[in-house]
Amino acid sequence: MNFHVMTLFPEQISGFLGESITGRAQANGLIQLHTYDIRDFTLDKHGKTDDYPYGGGSGMLMQVQPIYDCYRYVKRHIPDDSKVRALYMSPKGRKFDQKMAEELSTLDDIIFLCGHYEGVDERALELTGCEPVSIGDYVLTGGEMPAVVIIDAVSRLIPGVLHGEDSSEIETFHDGLLEYPQYSRPEVFEGLKVPEILLSGNHGKVDEWRRQQSIKKTLELRPDLIDESRLSKKELKYLRSLDINTES
Amino acid sequence: MNFHVMTLFPEQISGFLGESITGRAQANGLIQLHTYDIRDFTLDKHGKTDDYPYGGGSGMLMQVQPIYDCYRYVKRHIPDDSKVRALYMSPKGRKFDQKMAEELSTLDDIIFLCGHYEGVDERALELTGCEPVSIGDYVLTGGEMPAVVIIDAVSRLIPGVLHGEDSSEIETFHDGLLEYPQYSRPEVFEGLKVPEILLSGNHGKVDEWRRQQSIKKTLELRPDLIDESRLSKKELKYLRSLDINTES
Repeated sequence: MNFHVMTLFPEQISGFLGESITGRAQANGLIQLHTYDIRDFTLDKHGKTDDYPYGGGSGMLMQVQPIYDCYRYVKRHIPDDSKVRALYMSPKGRKFDQKMAEELSTLDDIIFLCGHYEGVDERALELTGCEPVSIGDYVLTGGEMPAVVIIDAVSRLIPGVLHGEDSSEIETFHDGLLEYPQYSRPEVFEGLKVPEILLSGNHGKVDEWRRQQSIKKTLELRPDLIDESRLSKKELKYLRSLDINTES
Repeated sequence: MNFHVMTLFPEQISGFLGESITGRAQANGLIQLHTYDIRDFTLDKHGKTDDYPYGGGSGMLMQVQPIYDCYRYVKRHIPDDSKVRALYMSPKGRKFDQKMAEELSTLDDIIFLCGHYEGVDERALELTGCEPVSIGDYVLTGGEMPAVVIIDAVSRLIPGVLHGEDSSEIETFHDGLLEYPQYSRPEVFEGLKVPEILLSGNHGKVDEWRRQQSIKKTLELRPDLIDESRLSKKELKYLRSLDINTES
């Protein structure tokens, strides 16, 4: 999997992803990260990449020429028969979620365009075919963080990237419910004890308790995620026994 | 505004936020970023911060002791009367959005706990009072990116952080609609022209066109955001004239 990031701040991208799990995945050759400095492609003699918007308004816009030339350079490094998609990081875009991460993890190449300032010239999106994608309903100073978020979420789905220290099997969203609370050593800390059931060695009981805790947490924090048709009769009964205020 | 980040990867945080707008805000003293390496607080002689979960299961858990001791150290650096909140970055949490960014921007101190591996011992959350917060419905390898996302979104709302290069006034989500397309120089690029209206100098017409484009974009990409009660009669008429397939 090749990630190609077009940005004005290449060090932000490579610095962040060079550490931890994504850093190791690069070292192992499981993912490749390529950053391209859009500023290297401007034809402006002062190295400028932004200008005022036509029609007036506050703020500056990233111009089309440096972005388009950078994009053509990136494309030269991608084989013709590659499975590729180009994404523009924008709060105006399609919402990124775990399902989209799974879709993206089957590609060979993903190209990211990171905006800054007030946005980019609309023609940059038309000419590159970049799809607008949003990681959430909030405004950021640039598209670098969203690109890093997507690269991380996609990378960890690629076989071999995660070892024992994490698991993509039993986790948040996998069965539609939030995860149950977990405990590790010591058994007692600042007077707080690990729930007895987890020390019992009775796997059936442990599983039942965890499942109930998941239902309880989900009801408290994200009641919208509860799908009663996916619960067993016993679990439904448990759900109805919970006397929790579900106001958010 | 002080941001305190408890993490196993402090360089990821400081590297990313040292650049661009948040880097300048730190240089200008508008925000202060403090990172704390949780590993520095472990009492384990091998520097270990994680262990197996009680009750079995795959993956490792961050232990309570190093987190709690790190938290107590952080708290010693925060004045007693400070407006402070502690957040735990987790896909199980309350959804972070622009409204929450605005809430957080009025505080004096924000403490972040970044998880890794399979999560943290539940008692770490109880003892620190960290609220679980999620930046979106996807799973990441750690809480560092979410912390950076929140710090960025909050920082840009602090007076003085943004100058002319960006504007928090006319932008995405401000009036509930997505932003209109924008154009900058040159007038013609690869055969694509800037819309005539933007070159007309007629501000009334430009505003009307932009507003219509916002409505059109929102209908195409995020129909859920359209609130008809906030549209004028003329805009409602325009909305109804659009013959767009709004399936997502």
